[in-house]
Amino acid sequence: MTDLLEDCRRTHYSKQIKPEMKDEDVVIMGWIHEMRDLGGIIFVLLRDRDGVTQVTAPSKKIEPELFEELKKLKKESVIAVKGRVQESAKAPGGVEIIPETIKLLSESKLPLPLDTTEKVRAEIDTRLDSRFIDLRKHSVSAIFKVKSRMLHSVRNFLESENYTEINTPKLVGSATEGGTELFPITYFEREAFLGQSPQLYKQMMMASGFDNVYEIAPIFRAEEHDTLRHLNEVISIDVETAFTDQIDAMNILEKMVVKAITDVKEHCKDALDTLEFDLQIPETPFPRIEYDEMVEMVNNKGVKMEHGEDMSRAAEKVMGELMDGYYFITAWPTDIKPFYVQPSAEDPAKSCAFDLMYKDLEISSGAMRIHNHDLLVEKIKSKGLNPDSFNRYLAAFEYGMPPHAGWGVGAERFTMTMTGQTNIRETVLFPRDRRRLTP
Amino acid sequence: MTDLLEDCRRTHYSKQIKPEMKDEDVVIMGWIHEMRDLGGIIFVLLRDRDGVTQVTAPSKKIEPELFEELKKLKKESVIAVKGRVQESAKAPGGVEIIPETIKLLSESKLPLPLDTTEKVRAEIDTRLDSRFIDLRKHSVSAIFKVKSRMLHSVRNFLESENYTEINTPKLVGSATEGGTELFPITYFEREAFLGQSPQLYKQMMMASGFDNVYEIAPIFRAEEHDTLRHLNEVISIDVETAFTDQIDAMNILEKMVVKAITDVKEHCKDALDTLEFDLQIPETPFPRIEYDEMVEMVNNKGVKMEHGEDMSRAAEKVMGELMDGYYFITAWPTDIKPFYVQPSAEDPAKSCAFDLMYKDLEISSGAMRIHNHDLLVEKIKSKGLNPDSFNRYLAAFEYGMPPHAGWGVGAERFTMTMTGQTNIRETVLFPRDRRRLTP
Repeated sequence: MTDLLEDCRRTHYSKQIKPEMKDEDVVIMGWIHEMRDLGGIIFVLLRDRDGVTQVTAPSKKIEPELFEELKKLKKESVIAVKGRVQESAKAPGGVEIIPETIKLLSESKLPLPLDTTEKVRAEIDTRLDSRFIDLRKHSVSAIFKVKSRMLHSVRNFLESENYTEINTPKLVGSATEGGTELFPITYFEREAFLGQSPQLYKQMMMASGFDNVYEIAPIFRAEEHDTLRHLNEVISIDVETAFTDQIDAMNILEKMVVKAITDVKEHCKDALDTLEFDLQIPETPFPRIEYDEMVEMVNNKGVKMEHGEDMSRAAEKVMGELMDGYYFITAWPTDIKPFYVQPSAEDPAKSCAFDLMYKDLEISSGAMRIHNHDLLVEKIKSKGLNPDSFNRYLAAFEYGMPPHAGWGVGAERFTMTMTGQTNIRETVLFPRDRRRLTP
Repeated sequence: MTDLLEDCRRTHYSKQIKPEMKDEDVVIMGWIHEMRDLGGIIFVLLRDRDGVTQVTAPSKKIEPELFEELKKLKKESVIAVKGRVQESAKAPGGVEIIPETIKLLSESKLPLPLDTTEKVRAEIDTRLDSRFIDLRKHSVSAIFKVKSRMLHSVRNFLESENYTEINTPKLVGSATEGGTELFPITYFEREAFLGQSPQLYKQMMMASGFDNVYEIAPIFRAEEHDTLRHLNEVISIDVETAFTDQIDAMNILEKMVVKAITDVKEHCKDALDTLEFDLQIPETPFPRIEYDEMVEMVNNKGVKMEHGEDMSRAAEKVMGELMDGYYFITAWPTDIKPFYVQPSAEDPAKSCAFDLMYKDLEISSGAMRIHNHDLLVEKIKSKGLNPDSFNRYLAAFEYGMPPHAGWGVGAERFTMTMTGQTNIRETVLFPRDRRRLTP
């Protein structure tokens, strides 16, 4: 028996086999989820991407050699089964397969480093060490089916709104935005850094005439946080739009959120059922709370917050209790936002920046940006940064830069809100944090 | 006059304004492409994402203040014009706008670092230094419209074929595949590397039950090449499929190529016209030439190539002359392919690896992979690598690993074939090579 595929190909996934297919020959392929050898009859539960099919082998109905082969099979080995569909009220999906031939494609060692039947709960670190087995659980793969669909929906939405996908470099020559820590790279004989966000690049693109751009790509932050909401490598959904302000930016963002959720609800019913998560489609417009009002709400609940401070975790939690679902916090103090944020025309101490929150979790930050070169230089200086190290970026503001606004959404945090997860590690196949660089 | 947008919003792009819209009020926004002041009449050519509109201001028909404002405008400044549509046989698109108000959103400095009218040709390095201006030329932005559409088509195709998008880490703990040079990163107190390809991760996903996966993401290679076909950061379209072999992999790849080209041809007509590129839809199946035959073809043309060698640039050029369009080179010697490539069952000196070529350019490499753990360990050793440093990867082959195959397509090279470009730098917004890390 060879472990190569040869001419053998899957004809159906588990989910596609219906009682109406009685007496049809099918080829199914997957992992041995469970084996029961009752002496005269062997039951093999074969698991594939979307489900499980029962292979039923009564010794009286099949060839003795085949029965012996079946007896030797081990849990989690990969097999191909050619057989005939039969109705069976007791089997999953109401069908079972009576095998004619089987092919052992890959034998599994035992014991497994991790149980796949969802009966035994393992620690997240044990699960991540053997992620390839952890993902065999439909309750785990469901999260990634939602994430994949969400990303696809987001792209479809942005394309339908006339956005152009761009790819900006992740290798950058100098530490730019300041503040957040960067990972240094050895770039031949020079030092370079990993991009912490495409912010400066997507702004430069605004001077190019592309108008509406988006990028979905990894960003890297060398922050030493150890929380359930941060990782050192995540996927950022970045959008920038010329000839718009922060109101337009919020409008397109909430439209995208609703569109993605609606689409996931429609296309990922099985995954959401597996996760037992009741995904709600939010109504628009999302509530828009000014920073000043938020500070008052937080203080009223007994959590001390000074005007001009960023939100503490405690403040986020208070807001999470007060607000159910998505909401914007707007009109942030200019001083605690990055240099490129446009101050409000009426009151420059307030900015045109906003955060999108889901309960106590920040999903997105955005703003109308400064497009006036001289004001931008002034703001860079006021943050204690050197305008000379921004010369390539600043040049884009000297030869015709339209007003523009944009935002970045954390793809993993957005996935958390769609799947009911509280640990961001659950939404990344191979997460990267301070302690974890493998697998 | 404020440079803020306030309530002013674009109603139409240039391309949307038609002679039938005579007497309608419109708001257009963009860059001043050209200015002609004939004394009693001023012509402003306003350029936006997709085209150019003529603003015609006869001193007799408009307010004197507005006429004075118009006189002061400088080339490449960003303006918003509210005005009335009028038919004009001589103007682009058969229409002109008689302005009622204008708003100067951003004034450009003069002289420009780069000409935008396509009359003066600049060196690629000068252009890349001021990429934001270079991209204002429709002949340059056209390339990125094609690239964006190609990526969108590829994703739509893969989704329709039931592939799941995955995101694998770019920060990796150890130098893996060997051979290609890696960029080292300082990851807190440890050393890490930038992923040179998602190869090992997409293979690990094959053991997870996802079956069909794809990723479109940056890859990083620290090779010191200085050619028109290599960069140190590029976008890779990676696909891996369980329960398939290299024949299936080639079939899905050529199907994707045809689908993407067909889609670009349909949706990017203007961009292709601007590029004056006659994009041809190739026929399938693409020719499949065995390595042995290719070596003979190359030698017959007077370029010396030993059996067992990789293709030299000279050999690629010969093949590019002999083959017009896309073709596969198959059955490569096992010895010159990576350790994870499956040797042929009939003749283990030959492998199940293939390259997809377009004339003299390699677009993709792929193969059926080894899925047998012990054979893989043996191959890793035979390449002089240490299996211990692959322990997390190898674990995925011990607990049920289906046969699988896949490939990676260089998004930039694929874009080159769709736009007639010969320098890969033309297909990257902000290219990264040995010498260039900015902007």
